[in-house]
Amino acid sequence: MSNRPVAAIVLAAGKGTRMKSSLHKVLHPVAGRPMIEHLLASLDGLSPSRVVAVVGDSREQLQDRLGERVAYAVQDPQLGTGHAVQQAQDALAGFEGDVLVLYGDVPFVRAVTMQAMLDRLDEDDGPAAVVLGFEPEDPLSYGRVVADGAGRIAKMVEYKDASEEERACRLCNSGLLAAKSSDLFALLDRVKNENAQGEYYLPDIVNIAIADGRTCAAVTTDDPAEVGGINSRAELAAAEAQWQEYRREEAMADGVTLRAPDTVFFSYDTQIGRDVTVEPHVVFGPGVSVADGATIRAFSHLEGASVGEGCEVGPYARLRPGAEMRAGSKVGNFVEMKKAVLGEGAKANHLTYIGDATVGAGANIGAGTITCNYDGYFKHQTVIGERAFIGSNSALVAPVSIGADAIVAAGSTVSRDVADGELRMVRAEQLVKPGWADRFHDAMKKKKKADSK
Amino acid sequence: MSNRPVAAIVLAAGKGTRMKSSLHKVLHPVAGRPMIEHLLASLDGLSPSRVVAVVGDSREQLQDRLGERVAYAVQDPQLGTGHAVQQAQDALAGFEGDVLVLYGDVPFVRAVTMQAMLDRLDEDDGPAAVVLGFEPEDPLSYGRVVADGAGRIAKMVEYKDASEEERACRLCNSGLLAAKSSDLFALLDRVKNENAQGEYYLPDIVNIAIADGRTCAAVTTDDPAEVGGINSRAELAAAEAQWQEYRREEAMADGVTLRAPDTVFFSYDTQIGRDVTVEPHVVFGPGVSVADGATIRAFSHLEGASVGEGCEVGPYARLRPGAEMRAGSKVGNFVEMKKAVLGEGAKANHLTYIGDATVGAGANIGAGTITCNYDGYFKHQTVIGERAFIGSNSALVAPVSIGADAIVAAGSTVSRDVADGELRMVRAEQLVKPGWADRFHDAMKKKKKADSK
Amino acid sequence: MSNRPVAAIVLAAGKGTRMKSSLHKVLHPVAGRPMIEHLLASLDGLSPSRVVAVVGDSREQLQDRLGERVAYAVQDPQLGTGHAVQQAQDALAGFEGDVLVLYGDVPFVRAVTMQAMLDRLDEDDGPAAVVLGFEPEDPLSYGRVVADGAGRIAKMVEYKDASEEERACRLCNSGLLAAKSSDLFALLDRVKNENAQGEYYLPDIVNIAIADGRTCAAVTTDDPAEVGGINSRAELAAAEAQWQEYRREEAMADGVTLRAPDTVFFSYDTQIGRDVTVEPHVVFGPGVSVADGATIRAFSHLEGASVGEGCEVGPYARLRPGAEMRAGSKVGNFVEMKKAVLGEGAKANHLTYIGDATVGAGANIGAGTITCNYDGYFKHQTVIGERAFIGSNSALVAPVSIGADAIVAAGSTVSRDVADGELRMVRAEQLVKPGWADRFHDAMKKKKKADSK
Repeated sequence: MSNRPVAAIVLAAGKGTRMKSSLHKVLHPVAGRPMIEHLLASLDGLSPSRVVAVVGDSREQLQDRLGERVAYAVQDPQLGTGHAVQQAQDALAGFEGDVLVLYGDVPFVRAVTMQAMLDRLDEDDGPAAVVLGFEPEDPLSYGRVVADGAGRIAKMVEYKDASEEERACRLCNSGLLAAKSSDLFALLDRVKNENAQGEYYLPDIVNIAIADGRTCAAVTTDDPAEVGGINSRAELAAAEAQWQEYRREEAMADGVTLRAPDTVFFSYDTQIGRDVTVEPHVVFGPGVSVADGATIRAFSHLEGASVGEGCEVGPYARLRPGAEMRAGSKVGNFVEMKKAVLGEGAKANHLTYIGDATVGAGANIGAGTITCNYDGYFKHQTVIGERAFIGSNSALVAPVSIGADAIVAAGSTVSRDVADGELRMVRAEQLVKPGWADRFHDAMKKKKKADSK
Repeated sequence: MSNRPVAAIVLAAGKGTRMKSSLHKVLHPVAGRPMIEHLLASLDGLSPSRVVAVVGDSREQLQDRLGERVAYAVQDPQLGTGHAVQQAQDALAGFEGDVLVLYGDVPFVRAVTMQAMLDRLDEDDGPAAVVLGFEPEDPLSYGRVVADGAGRIAKMVEYKDASEEERACRLCNSGLLAAKSSDLFALLDRVKNENAQGEYYLPDIVNIAIADGRTCAAVTTDDPAEVGGINSRAELAAAEAQWQEYRREEAMADGVTLRAPDTVFFSYDTQIGRDVTVEPHVVFGPGVSVADGATIRAFSHLEGASVGEGCEVGPYARLRPGAEMRAGSKVGNFVEMKKAVLGEGAKANHLTYIGDATVGAGANIGAGTITCNYDGYFKHQTVIGERAFIGSNSALVAPVSIGADAIVAAGSTVSRDVADGELRMVRAEQLVKPGWADRFHDAMKKKKKADSK
Repeated sequence: MSNRPVAAIVLAAGKGTRMKSSLHKVLHPVAGRPMIEHLLASLDGLSPSRVVAVVGDSREQLQDRLGERVAYAVQDPQLGTGHAVQQAQDALAGFEGDVLVLYGDVPFVRAVTMQAMLDRLDEDDGPAAVVLGFEPEDPLSYGRVVADGAGRIAKMVEYKDASEEERACRLCNSGLLAAKSSDLFALLDRVKNENAQGEYYLPDIVNIAIADGRTCAAVTTDDPAEVGGINSRAELAAAEAQWQEYRREEAMADGVTLRAPDTVFFSYDTQIGRDVTVEPHVVFGPGVSVADGATIRAFSHLEGASVGEGCEVGPYARLRPGAEMRAGSKVGNFVEMKKAVLGEGAKANHLTYIGDATVGAGANIGAGTITCNYDGYFKHQTVIGERAFIGSNSALVAPVSIGADAIVAAGSTVSRDVADGELRMVRAEQLVKPGWADRFHDAMKKKKKADSK
C-alpha cells in the first residue's frame, strides 16, 4: 500500500431531475443515511487528507448536512465531468498526492476497491490514470474500456462511437478514476468540448495520456453492483433492497434468527447480538443496538434505542430515541418509550407511553399508563422506584416520583410524589344509579325509532 | 377513431367454482375494487352508449353492487360463450353500432386495446369480427388464431383440434371480440353446439364468417398480462401483485420515495404527491389522498383520508374514512382518527382516538386522549379550539367543546364545555396510605407461598 | 404396505456450529415449531413402534422439549453417522423390523416418502438397505448414488472420490436410509473408519452389502426440497420461506383470500375457514383457528386464539392465547385480548385491553377500556353482561362484574360490581378555572423566552 497522501473529489453538482424531488439527489437516504454519507464512510477507510465535494444545484442543502466534513467547490455552469473535477483544483491547492474521483450518486464503492485503484496507480509502470472498470451482465450502452489482459488501456470509447469490435468488449467504464494530482489537472487542461453536448468529459484524459505515450490502467471490480448509480426513486429503492439483502445475510451469518428476512429493515448502524430473534415485519431506524438473546417481536419499530440482554420487545412496540431497556425488561404491545430507562426485569406490557422517565428494576407498569411529560412548553421527568406497581389506566403528571415498592391504584392521576411502600389512590366516589341504564335504553330506542321515521 | 356508437357485452354469468367463495367471482377485489369495476372503468374511456352484463349465478350480488351502471341479461342455463352473448340481444334492441365482447373476470384490458379493436373493425376491408390475440411466453393449450402477417385470420382453432403446424402458431385467442351489432347476432344464430360439451362457442362466428368469404381480423396486444383471467384466489393474488408493482413504479417515477416498495399497498384510487416518503409496511385503502412533502411512516393504515402538505403520519397511525389532516399536522403512534379534522400544525402523537371531532390549528392532544363520541345509540361531536392543550389520559364526553387556548388537565373526564383560555380539571383527591403497599406486599407474598404449597 | 413393525432413529447429536446459537440446532423453529417436531409429526404417519433420538451436544435441551415422546441414545464422542446409528442399538434391543434413519436437521421429509422407502425394503428382491436419493438442479459436491434404471445400486461414492463418469450421475445421496434391524446393525459392525476424518460413515454399509452380493436399492424423491438440510440461519429462513409458500398456496386453493400472500405468516397448525379474507401484514402464531367468513385486517397478530364466523379482526388487533371471539364479534385497532371471551356480536373497537374476562353478547367496550386484571401477584376475572355498554377510558378493577344492559360512564374506574340495567359513574367534580389557561400561557411564554436567552 502506498504512503502517498490521498485526496478525493466527490462530484455532486447535478440536479438529479429524475428524482423529481426538492431534496438534492445525493441526500436521499439508503438504510437511513444519505447516500453520499455511505460513500464518505467508505472513503474514511483510506484516511484521505482532503475531500472536496463539487457542488452546484441546491448546494446549500449539502453544506447544511455535511458541514465541515468536506471542502466545497462550486460548479456553475455545469459543463461536464471533466469541468467538474477542474473546479476542485483551487480547493486542492498545495496538495500533492493521489486523487480519487468519486460520484455522490454512486455511493456503494467499497474502500477496498478505492484502495485497489490507488495501489495500481503506484505500480512501477507509473500510469497517468487508473480507471475503475466493471463487467455487467449486459453491457448495454455503457462506455467501453478497451484494455489488454493486464489491464493496460488501449482506448476509452463512448458506446455510440464504438466499433462492433469495441462494443464486443465487456469491460465498461464506471466513471471512477484515480490519478496523481499533478497529472490530473495538467491533463484536464487539454480536454476539449468538441462534442454534441459541448461538455468536457473526464475520460478524455485517458486518451490524451495514451496519445502522449503514457500508460493508463484499468482495475476491475468483482462486484458490478458497487458502481451502480442512483438516478431515480426506483434505483434508490433497488439500492435499498440490495443493501438490506446484504445486511440480512450478514445478520443471519452472525447468529440472528430472521424468520422472514424480506420483511425486516435495518439501518446503516444497527448493532445486533447473537441469538437474537427478529420476527416478521420489524423496522430498525438509526442508532439501535440489541444485545444477545433478545427477542424483537412482530410489528416493532425501533430508533435510537438500546435493548438489553434477553429483553422482549413487542409485538407493536415502539422504541424512540433515548429508550434504554435494561437486561430482561419487557415492552409489550402498543407501548411507546422515549428518552426513558426501563430497569432490569421491569415490564410495560400494554398500551402505555413512557417518556422522559426512569423506571426502576422489577417495576410493573400497568396497561394504559401514561407519563404526562409535557405541559405544552416544557418536558418534565417521571421517576418510578424499584418494584413499584403502577395500576392500569394511571396518569403520572411529571415532574413526579413514585417510591420503591409503592403502589398506584388503577385509574389514578398522580400529581404529587408517592413515598416508598405507600399506596396512592386517586379515585372519585362510585355513583350508583339503579335502573337508570334500563330507562336510558328505553328512551334511546324510542328516539332511534322516531328518527328513522 | 370511429364515430360509430359502441356497446359492450360483459360476460359474468359463471359461478367461479375455483374461487370456493359465496361471493361472485367478478366481485372479488383487486386493489380495493371489485375486478369487474376495473373493467368498467377502462370501458368508460370509450364512452359506450350501452353496457350489458350477462349474469347468471348469484346475479343479485352483481345487481346490488353495480345497480343501474349497466343493463342486465340473464343466461340460464349456461350453454357457452356464444349463447351468453346471444342473451344480450334483447338488451341491445335498437342499438346499431360496434359491439365489444368482454369478460368480467378478465378485468385489466386497457381502453387503448379496446379502441384498437374498434378501429380495426372500421377499416376499409370491413371485417365481420375482430379478435384480440396475445402471444404468451408459453402458449400452452390456448386456442390458436391462425392469421397472416397483416392480421387477417385464416382459422380459429381449439388447441385440442389443432394440427402440429397450427399449434406452432404463437398467436392465442383471448376470447375478446368486436363486431358490428348486425353481424354479431346474425352470425351467432348460425353457431351450432355439436361438440363434446354441447355448448355454443363465440369464436365459431369467425370461422362461419370466413366460410362466407368475409374478412376477419386479429389485433394483438403488446402486453399479454392484460388478457389474463382470474379464476382462483391464487390468480387473484397474482393480479393484485402485478397491479401493485405497476402502481409502485408509477409512484416512484412521479417522485414518491418508497423505501421498501414490496411492503406498500395502494388502492385503485390512491392519490399521492411529490416528495412524499412512504416507509415500509404501509397500507392505503380506498379514498386516500396525500399531499406533497408528507411522510407516511411505517405500519400506517389509511382509508378514506386526506393528508395535507408536509404532514407526518405514524408510525402505527390509523386514519379511517373522513379523517382530514390539514397542512403540517401530525398523527403519531397508536392513534386512530375517524370523521375528524386535525387543524394546521395540530398534533395527536400517542395512543389516542379522535372520532367525530374538529381539532383547531396548533392544538395539542395529549397521549391517551379519547373522544367519547358514542353513547350506544348516537354519535356526537367534539370541537377543540385552536391552540388548546388536552392533557394526557383525558376523556372528552361528546357533545362537548373545548375553547381556544384552553387547557384540560391530565386525567380529566370532561363532560361540560370549556371556555376559551379556561383550565378544566376533573380529578379526585390524592388519597395517601403510607406503608399500605409494604403491608400488601407482605400479605400477598405469604398468600403466594401458601398457594404454592 | 408392509405389516412389519417400524422403528426410527433420528440423528440429532451435532452441535450445529454454523447456527451460532446456544439453542440446539434441531430446536430452532420453522412455522412456529421446532424443526425436529416437524419430522416427528411426519413420522407419526407411519405409527412407528419406537423412535430413538441420538443426542450429544446440548442433549438436555432436547430432553426438556421432547420428554418421553422419544427414547434417547447418547453419542459421545461423535465419530460419524455410522457410529451415531450404532449408539441406538441398545435402545432398540428386542426390536425386530424395519428401521428408518432420519436426521433432525432434515425435517421436511414426508411420510409418503418414508413409506416408499419401507415399501421398497419389503419387495421380493430383499434389499439389505434402501437409500433415499434426490436429483437436485445442480448436484454440486453431493455424494452420488450410482444405480441402474430400476434403482438397484451399483455403488455409493463420495464426490471427492468419484470418477468423472460417476460425477455425471445426477442421483445424489440424501443420507436417509432404511434397513431391517438385523441387517443394519450387523453391517454397521463391519464399517471401518479408515478415512481422512477417522469417522464411521453410514453409507458404507451399502457398499459392504453389495460386496456381499446383496441387493441395495435407491428410492428417488420427486421433490428435492424435502431432503434439504438446515445448517445455518440462512437455511432456516429459506426453509421457513418455502414452508410459508406452500401453506399460502394451500390456503388460497381452499378459498381464503390473501391480498398479499408474501406478507402473511402462518404457523404449523393454523386452521382457517372458507371465504376468510386476510389483508396484508398479518402474523398467525401457533394455535389459531379462524372460522368461515371472518376478516383479518392488516397488521394483526394472533396466537392461541379462536375467531368465530364472520368476525372482524383488526387492523392492529392482537389476540393472545385464550382469546375467543364468538360469531360476528369485532376487535379493532390497538386492542389486546388475552384469556377472554368476546360474546356474539360484541365489539371492542379501539385502544383496549381485555384480559381474564368474559364479555357478553352484544356488549360494547368503549375506546381506551382497560381490564385491570393483575394486582402484582394474582390475576382476577372481569365479567361483563350482555348488551352492557362500557364508556370510553374506563378501568374495570377485577374481580368485578358488570350486569346485563348496564352502563359504565366514560372515564370511570369501577371497583365494585354493577347490577343489571344500572348506571355506574365514577367521576370527580368539574373544577373550572376561567382565564387560568390564558395566564399560564403568558407565564410559560415568558419563561421560554427567558430560558432561551
